[in-house]
Amino acid sequence: MTGLTAYFGIIDVGRVKAGDFVVVSGAAGATGSVVGQIAKLKGATVLGIAGSSDKVRWLKEELGFDDALNYKDKDFFKKFRAATKDLIDVYFDNVGGEILDMALSRAKPHARFVMCGGISQYNSSNPQGPKNYLMIVSMRIRMEGFIVFDYAKEYPRALKDLAQWLSEGKIKRKETIIKGGLDQAENALQDLYNGVNTGKLLVEVKPVEEQQLKASL
Amino acid sequence: MTGLTAYFGIIDVGRVKAGDFVVVSGAAGATGSVVGQIAKLKGATVLGIAGSSDKVRWLKEELGFDDALNYKDKDFFKKFRAATKDLIDVYFDNVGGEILDMALSRAKPHARFVMCGGISQYNSSNPQGPKNYLMIVSMRIRMEGFIVFDYAKEYPRALKDLAQWLSEGKIKRKETIIKGGLDQAENALQDLYNGVNTGKLLVEVKPVEEQQLKASL
Repeated sequence: MTGLTAYFGIIDVGRVKAGDFVVVSGAAGATGSVVGQIAKLKGATVLGIAGSSDKVRWLKEELGFDDALNYKDKDFFKKFRAATKDLIDVYFDNVGGEILDMALSRAKPHARFVMCGGISQYNSSNPQGPKNYLMIVSMRIRMEGFIVFDYAKEYPRALKDLAQWLSEGKIKRKETIIKGGLDQAENALQDLYNGVNTGKLLVEVKPVEEQQLKASL
Repeated sequence: MTGLTAYFGIIDVGRVKAGDFVVVSGAAGATGSVVGQIAKLKGATVLGIAGSSDKVRWLKEELGFDDALNYKDKDFFKKFRAATKDLIDVYFDNVGGEILDMALSRAKPHARFVMCGGISQYNSSNPQGPKNYLMIVSMRIRMEGFIVFDYAKEYPRALKDLAQWLSEGKIKRKETIIKGGLDQAENALQDLYNGVNTGKLLVEVKPVEEQQLKASL
């Protein structure tokens, strides 16, 4: 489902095209990592924002992002300004908060802001709206939210493309698996909000050995 | 120019159509008052938000808005909830601030938010972003800013329609004229932010008598 979300978000809502400068927040997540790779396939230049130097390395070295930044870096703001000096055509937002505000301040006229989520705000008792939202007027930004289920009729087109790209090695995926069964689900959810995972975060419900044992009976 | 802004905003950005429920903030202003009237012409139901009971009366009784509310009314929040119980298809925003947040909380899925201005925020030292912006995701809202100059090539179409509607009495305009020459311009600008005007706010640079005297010489 995260692959489909990435697909319809960057292609149908973001209308990514060759030459675009695309910025993805939550770029090492299950959705963000595929968004960036599809944007690259379409000929865009891609900057990813993630929460650790390991993730930054993975995005650049394994997924082929043009650039990636760690938002926990103490010079992040300065580096973001430098990396977006040519201004943003498409911003794919998974996190909201201050990074969304920074992206608004660096939007090109007629930029498209694809609103997929706002993980930084979900658990906030005092949610912050984007202070720079008046850039939507001055830069004539289109900020659009979407939910993948609205595209149900078009899943076949997306699945065909995604399957082909995966089989050709043009798109890579990663999973972070938490072991220890359902007892760990609660901790895993906290880990999700703390950005522990790279790629899709899964909880192993039953150890593999046990499943295999059962299957072999 | 305000008529053209209203025209392209509600027709091209808002894509208003018959049956839509349209809410306009700053509805008694030069742009907002024309937005509401065009939406009515297109078959929409229109609720205007303005800042005095006189303006509310003008919108309903003279301009034909279906409903109008005074945001300075102490029961405004409650009245707004009641008036938007069927949820909003198109929100035309001239003011930003809390009313934008309330509109977000009452958006229909796939609502269009036409971002024209945010007069409540222009002079704020601590601008407030819309706290409810995550409704953009959950309701799949398209929030789009625009500037009338981008439509320069299409002015002829708009001017033809606007001239016809004006001549047929389908659109009415109002001006608030501040007398006393350019000395009053500074006060007039303050008045604009205080919402003193209904319709376009103009400063009379030279008394009419003097202009006529000069013209007759």
